[in-house]
Amino acid sequence: MLNPQLNKHGELQHLLSIEGLPKSIVNHILDTASSFVGVSDREVKKVPLMRGKSVFNLFFENSTRTRTTFEIASKRLSADVINLNIQASSASKGESLLDTIDNLSAMHADMFVVRHSQSGAPYLIAKHLNDHKQHHVHVVNAGDGRHAHPTQGLLDMYTIRHYKKDFTKLTVAIVGDILHSRVARSDIHALTTLGVPEVRAIGPHTLLPGGLEQLGVRTFTNMDEGLKGVDVIIMLRLQNERMNGALLPSAQEYFKNYGLTPERLALARPDAIVMHPGPMNRGVEIDSAVADGPQAVILPQVTFGIAVRMAVMSILAGAKE
Amino acid sequence: MLNPQLNKHGELQHLLSIEGLPKSIVNHILDTASSFVGVSDREVKKVPLMRGKSVFNLFFENSTRTRTTFEIASKRLSADVINLNIQASSASKGESLLDTIDNLSAMHADMFVVRHSQSGAPYLIAKHLNDHKQHHVHVVNAGDGRHAHPTQGLLDMYTIRHYKKDFTKLTVAIVGDILHSRVARSDIHALTTLGVPEVRAIGPHTLLPGGLEQLGVRTFTNMDEGLKGVDVIIMLRLQNERMNGALLPSAQEYFKNYGLTPERLALARPDAIVMHPGPMNRGVEIDSAVADGPQAVILPQVTFGIAVRMAVMSILAGAKE
Amino acid sequence: MLNPQLNKHGELQHLLSIEGLPKSIVNHILDTASSFVGVSDREVKKVPLMRGKSVFNLFFENSTRTRTTFEIASKRLSADVINLNIQASSASKGESLLDTIDNLSAMHADMFVVRHSQSGAPYLIAKHLNDHKQHHVHVVNAGDGRHAHPTQGLLDMYTIRHYKKDFTKLTVAIVGDILHSRVARSDIHALTTLGVPEVRAIGPHTLLPGGLEQLGVRTFTNMDEGLKGVDVIIMLRLQNERMNGALLPSAQEYFKNYGLTPERLALARPDAIVMHPGPMNRGVEIDSAVADGPQAVILPQVTFGIAVRMAVMSILAGAKE
Repeated sequence: MLNPQLNKHGELQHLLSIEGLPKSIVNHILDTASSFVGVSDREVKKVPLMRGKSVFNLFFENSTRTRTTFEIASKRLSADVINLNIQASSASKGESLLDTIDNLSAMHADMFVVRHSQSGAPYLIAKHLNDHKQHHVHVVNAGDGRHAHPTQGLLDMYTIRHYKKDFTKLTVAIVGDILHSRVARSDIHALTTLGVPEVRAIGPHTLLPGGLEQLGVRTFTNMDEGLKGVDVIIMLRLQNERMNGALLPSAQEYFKNYGLTPERLALARPDAIVMHPGPMNRGVEIDSAVADGPQAVILPQVTFGIAVRMAVMSILAGAKE
Repeated sequence: MLNPQLNKHGELQHLLSIEGLPKSIVNHILDTASSFVGVSDREVKKVPLMRGKSVFNLFFENSTRTRTTFEIASKRLSADVINLNIQASSASKGESLLDTIDNLSAMHADMFVVRHSQSGAPYLIAKHLNDHKQHHVHVVNAGDGRHAHPTQGLLDMYTIRHYKKDFTKLTVAIVGDILHSRVARSDIHALTTLGVPEVRAIGPHTLLPGGLEQLGVRTFTNMDEGLKGVDVIIMLRLQNERMNGALLPSAQEYFKNYGLTPERLALARPDAIVMHPGPMNRGVEIDSAVADGPQAVILPQVTFGIAVRMAVMSILAGAKE
Repeated sequence: MLNPQLNKHGELQHLLSIEGLPKSIVNHILDTASSFVGVSDREVKKVPLMRGKSVFNLFFENSTRTRTTFEIASKRLSADVINLNIQASSASKGESLLDTIDNLSAMHADMFVVRHSQSGAPYLIAKHLNDHKQHHVHVVNAGDGRHAHPTQGLLDMYTIRHYKKDFTKLTVAIVGDILHSRVARSDIHALTTLGVPEVRAIGPHTLLPGGLEQLGVRTFTNMDEGLKGVDVIIMLRLQNERMNGALLPSAQEYFKNYGLTPERLALARPDAIVMHPGPMNRGVEIDSAVADGPQAVILPQVTFGIAVRMAVMSILAGAKE
């Protein structure tokens, strides 16, 4: 199997990364999500698509926010959800990751939602399941190291499509710590897959990884230049721990150069939208006047995120074995 | 909107405090609770009143006991419950309280059950939701700082009504650390609202706050005097941390002066009931002979507490938008 | 009531220990489990046997693995599950164990699944409930100190029965730290009850408790001798903390003498099965070639464990009051 994300019928078996995902599958996820947007508005916010299925949230790295979105998505699909805080479990007793997975599979798990600090951990799990013919078990990558965060990438695409309709005429800027950001990586692959003609990465030299040009991305260290004429601005969260290192001088200095203020936003197209994966550092990467302003679509991102996760999970659960 | 707890139709929109709550609404909650008391006795202890609703337990301060009662109440109403331990979440990543609330609202939360160490936090959340026209989201205060614990106050009223029927002829004594007690504060407002003619506060000078007289409460530092002829005794939990400070000499000394013993209980009316919000410090504020004796209604309080919380949640969920 | 596990009708009221459990009840549990094995294979893995029942996982000792199996079993029986991490709760506020139990019973709990580091804690709880006529509440011991782990013992019996059919012709060896193992103790009682003619205990002198002979168990300190001709090998997990004490020299030394290698396994009957309660220490008590080999039934044990726990819980829930 060349692409471990697809089964022999070409259907989505696992969601590990947007890299390598066919455009048709990305669009199928976005179309399915759009049918779920209404569900959360209903009086009874549930559909029975995953009734009796067992979803395991395996969070080897703490993330209440992401775990919550998957927990809500699972419950609205009527699945049974079991949250496992893996630091506190057998991992600390020396059991290997794959022994844990084998055990949970033996309990007839249907889906693993995996967050891990090490890049590639969800791949390792998916490969192990494929190798052992556990085709009834599906893996969703909920963020692995610096590698990928595909559901965030997909919800970002859903948001852009919702506001801008046509990907093929857009200029999209991603601003901030591109180097350490799995969100940036997933967004870049998704934007490219969907045919966005110009993707820009804006940030200080120290936070721009090599190889962006090969991905078709234009890099800018001057934010004012980078924002000129863009349709979509994706702000990244600045990890506080970067600030104390050699990579960045201070939060004030960062805000001065790369904080999104109303003045800077005015350089983009007048109908440009502002996105952020959250949680925001107000006054560090984004000014409150922008975060709460009319061009921000940060809360709609959250709303769409539930629908996108419901779409991914229900598509995986419906894959043929 | 003068009272942030009521919507424009005069219905309960949030439950933040018993202070300022119309007597008719207090009685409506108690009457509704009485219809739920039977549900927990049934073979299938569930009603579908909140099916498909998303309830978030937002506990910024740890309280397994209170969280558990709300979790049970939610599940018996068929709601989906998501527990958030906020210390471990985005709060630690520097996200503000209101950004967290906006995010969860964007996920189509229906209800926030909020416990917070700072007085007023649930008010802040409710006001923010009202200001942003998020009328589909309801807040229940599950205890904020020293301010209020309205569901405890309501379950105490339910218990008193169950055993004593008529509030307008009662003498009720609250004993212990009134100064730091949100339970005492909520009970005093509830008893006053329901027309109890004599409310007494008993405790050492250092633990009696100023201003009790203005609330219509008689204060006693001598417990024997304070207990004379009362119908209801509400014992408060003594926080261990008070003991080490300047406020109190020792647990032994406290028990000698303010511990409820069978001898002291005999000073009250012979049919007086003894209440305690739990968890009890046996041998500190209450003697085991009393706690396990025939006049204690401490476990019925717990049972009624589930019904009262089901009543509050179902009334809020049914409010018009 | 002589046996606190049985009610006056002779039905299972609590599952505390396999010691003293009538053979007919053990067989009833295994037979019931066999009807549940299929449920986890279905598209909708749920039966409504415990709909509306409230199951409390009371884990005074951390065990994600065991808690998870009970949580899955409960959800597949359609029960409402509430997980309580007791270290973080009222226990730390000084509330006694039995006050906690009384409180949860007052919330109309139906079942307590109890894991405790102190031997006898589940007995104490069951006796307290029986003494107070709380016959609607059932206790399942999910492991207490060094005493018992009855659901593990039962799932081990289910596994042996599945592969070997007839207990009355078997030789079963239990290998490792018998002294500290509640699993070993439960297995020995179960094997004896079900009529296994030869039970062997293999381990170093320091890890073999006294009194095994009185239970009808043959002891071996030489593993090669002990494994000769056995039908079933139950490997125990070696607790890392034993290694640093005076009881054992080192993990390498232990593996040399008591690790199950393919060579040693060849001394058993050719159709012998290898079991392990997990989590495994690969390279300490078991070689990976054996753990992943054709004679290992370690993952089927996990699968059967869910069915056995569903059986125990549904039988308890169905007991007459």
